[in-house]
Amino acid sequence: MPSSPIAIVGATGDLGFGLALRLAHAGTPVVIGSRDAQRATEAAERVVAAVPGADVRGAANPDAVAGAEIVVLSVPFASQASTLRSLRDALTPGQLLLDVTVPLATAVGGRPTRVLSVWQGSAAQQAQELVPAGVTVVSALHTVAASHLADLGHAFEEDVLIAGDDRDAKARIAALIQQIPGLRPIDAGKLEMARITEQLTALTIGVNIRHKATAGLRLTGLPDAGSWG
Amino acid sequence: MPSSPIAIVGATGDLGFGLALRLAHAGTPVVIGSRDAQRATEAAERVVAAVPGADVRGAANPDAVAGAEIVVLSVPFASQASTLRSLRDALTPGQLLLDVTVPLATAVGGRPTRVLSVWQGSAAQQAQELVPAGVTVVSALHTVAASHLADLGHAFEEDVLIAGDDRDAKARIAALIQQIPGLRPIDAGKLEMARITEQLTALTIGVNIRHKATAGLRLTGLPDAGSWG
Repeated sequence: MPSSPIAIVGATGDLGFGLALRLAHAGTPVVIGSRDAQRATEAAERVVAAVPGADVRGAANPDAVAGAEIVVLSVPFASQASTLRSLRDALTPGQLLLDVTVPLATAVGGRPTRVLSVWQGSAAQQAQELVPAGVTVVSALHTVAASHLADLGHAFEEDVLIAGDDRDAKARIAALIQQIPGLRPIDAGKLEMARITEQLTALTIGVNIRHKATAGLRLTGLPDAGSWG
Repeated sequence: MPSSPIAIVGATGDLGFGLALRLAHAGTPVVIGSRDAQRATEAAERVVAAVPGADVRGAANPDAVAGAEIVVLSVPFASQASTLRSLRDALTPGQLLLDVTVPLATAVGGRPTRVLSVWQGSAAQQAQELVPAGVTVVSALHTVAASHLADLGHAFEEDVLIAGDDRDAKARIAALIQQIPGLRPIDAGKLEMARITEQLTALTIGVNIRHKATAGLRLTGLPDAGSWG
């Protein structure tokens, strides 16, 4: 794991908060970023309340991002572009951006079971276009429920599909994912495959509504240890 | 199950043949359709060789389709539209068409890990536009490997995502799927969700190539019996 804390931009939202909680629980230092430093600090305090002694602090987004080897971007699609533009001076070459954005149609008042068509092909590819040169984007975590992340008592037994163009970057994200017991990282291919993996959020939201359940995804027929065993 | 045989248009192909074999093995009468009646008959003979006593025969596509309550369309995307146009006079109101077509980019010489954008949104929605009024289209079976269907010794433990606008039609396809042990039918929503489910073929093909494996899909957190328990 990196020696610097994992920065999570948008950890005041459900998925980002759940991820912060799980990583903190695994002993990984986390910096929670928000546009509002005060809200970030409050979220960090909530993590520490659930995981006493956790190395978690809050900061305004640019401060959270500065110096982090891995930055997680977990904001609504409607905010993705503006957030990345606001971070252009804070992000630096060599950083790894884990984008978990999903272009749900809710961004324009539509249904959460539908997605928007993104000109670049996917939210992750839009992110790659908006980050400074030298920042590598990896896409993942579209089928893991925020509520399951936030519930430390929930035992996962599901997969995380990881898409990205850089093998080493994907391996680093896989190692991050493996800190959460029961999540198996699977190499889903190049970053362009986010066109498919992002849509799985809309699919699972529909399935969840129909079944009053919280679904996750598992691929059968693969090595038990996943792609990075 | 319907009293008439299941017609499988394109059962000389891998997926259609595997499905014919599995349904025949379950005791369901099948008519294998092909443009060439002789090839259809040969495929039927191969099924009977594997499942002695099976009620399977071959016929030219229009003859295979005539009178079938359920017609499975299992042809390459490049042939989907022309096949459906050739069947316009054979298909009749009240019939149910199970479309398993995937708009893989191979249809235009591209990669099997990429999909084409279909004007109607998905191959299944294109099918709905091309069938006569009164024929209901349901979409499914995009993540079940043809090689696993063709291997009667393979024990499935995976899901089949079913998309369609008609609840009763989806339930009838679910019952068909349930004839194959270990396949759990899941209601994936309206036919438009085929925009997502069809793409899962490209995703799993990529995963298979990368892992030298044969992946299937399973959703966690749902009722053991699936959507039609």
